[in-house]
Amino acid sequence: MTIDGVPLTDRGLLLGDGLFETLLTVDGAVRHLEAHLDRMAAGCEALGLPPLDRDAARSLVEAAPAAAGLTAGRAAVRLTLTAGSGGRGLDRPEAPVLRLLAGCAPAPPAGAPAEAIIATVRRNEGSPASRLKTLAYLDNVLARSEARAAGADEALMLNNRGHLACASAGNLFWLDGEALATPAVSCGVLAGLARGRVIAAARAMGLAVTEVEVGPEAVAGAQAAFLTNSLTGVRPLLRLDGRTLGGDPRVAALTSASL
Amino acid sequence: MTIDGVPLTDRGLLLGDGLFETLLTVDGAVRHLEAHLDRMAAGCEALGLPPLDRDAARSLVEAAPAAAGLTAGRAAVRLTLTAGSGGRGLDRPEAPVLRLLAGCAPAPPAGAPAEAIIATVRRNEGSPASRLKTLAYLDNVLARSEARAAGADEALMLNNRGHLACASAGNLFWLDGEALATPAVSCGVLAGLARGRVIAAARAMGLAVTEVEVGPEAVAGAQAAFLTNSLTGVRPLLRLDGRTLGGDPRVAALTSASL
Repeated sequence: MTIDGVPLTDRGLLLGDGLFETLLTVDGAVRHLEAHLDRMAAGCEALGLPPLDRDAARSLVEAAPAAAGLTAGRAAVRLTLTAGSGGRGLDRPEAPVLRLLAGCAPAPPAGAPAEAIIATVRRNEGSPASRLKTLAYLDNVLARSEARAAGADEALMLNNRGHLACASAGNLFWLDGEALATPAVSCGVLAGLARGRVIAAARAMGLAVTEVEVGPEAVAGAQAAFLTNSLTGVRPLLRLDGRTLGGDPRVAALTSASL
Repeated sequence: MTIDGVPLTDRGLLLGDGLFETLLTVDGAVRHLEAHLDRMAAGCEALGLPPLDRDAARSLVEAAPAAAGLTAGRAAVRLTLTAGSGGRGLDRPEAPVLRLLAGCAPAPPAGAPAEAIIATVRRNEGSPASRLKTLAYLDNVLARSEARAAGADEALMLNNRGHLACASAGNLFWLDGEALATPAVSCGVLAGLARGRVIAAARAMGLAVTEVEVGPEAVAGAQAAFLTNSLTGVRPLLRLDGRTLGGDPRVAALTSASL
């Protein structure tokens, strides 16, 4: 019997076979809920899982802040989808029954400047999972651990070709002359929702946006760099491997579009 | 409350932050128990987790066959270790309390010949997790799904350099003239316990063993190839991408050493 958890037969627990979303709520209202559900539904398709029950997922997310007593101010809902229960081994059952769970916790502050290192653990650009928010997130955990061990709070991950991919929990951008640059999805990058909003806002400002496959020297030589995710919005990147990066007024102009 | 499962705060469930072992039991007796515990203990160290409680793990494994009514014949115990419960996000708590769980199921048959494809999903040689049995096993699930969709029962995984790594659930060997070859651990390979026993048995037979970084053409041109894991021992590889591979009497000689 399991309440607010999963049984030992769950493939999310046993194999990382599943997906998640992290959603910002403000005073109990969920931001960008349908966009998050769209992405989870697309992830189910990419992983060969049955379709997402959007109504069930929506209800779980909307009920989570009140259930946690977090209807005042900013909070973070984590929606977890597993491939459900299965038998021994890697093979999925013939008709998987997806399991949906949600919890809510206080959100981290928005926009706090970040200090990052370049992690040694690489992003697996050769797996479709590198472009999804899956339960197999251990590489990101290891990258973050490297950052904490170095006294930093974030880690930039390169892929196996040595190209920049993303941070352990967010996308990466930098200002390169008159253009805004970000690693291409082909580098092993989750197309973050905040990433998409920042790209759209930059173009609306008249800034060209390029999606690139380049090494970490591109960020070290940039005018300014920042990270994005759904909970924290734009986080200016203050330092990389101990070296101070510059600022740029255009970063502030993109911040309001990010959340 | 959770019985025989984990709560929604569990980092194994949420992030794949944990390890597993799969152990063969015969008439309720566990094969190579201490070697499996050694490997899990080493995995805890590699992931920066607290030390494994070997006594607790051993007790759980030894009790699992009887609890499942599987004390006659061959069975498979799955030992699961998670990083325990944590707060929101990637960062581990200051003092993680590991969670150990075990279950037992009927074992697959030993030595059944395999038909494999080359999967499109790649092994992440740039992560230490590729050399461990972690809960973030989704890439292997996806590789196996590709095999099933193609009418095969196993998938060989290449890494991002295009070098052979392993099968979705086992190590790979092939006979190359007078030598036995297997992908080097640096290719993103779990050093399987059956792999180690086969290497030792081959050397005792006077066969040279080479650990190599090569592409899939090496297997296509070999005299014979086989897969190994702790549950099924040596499985001759009958077909690869639809082409029939040869047999070799030396494979049979290694089979008895594999379990």
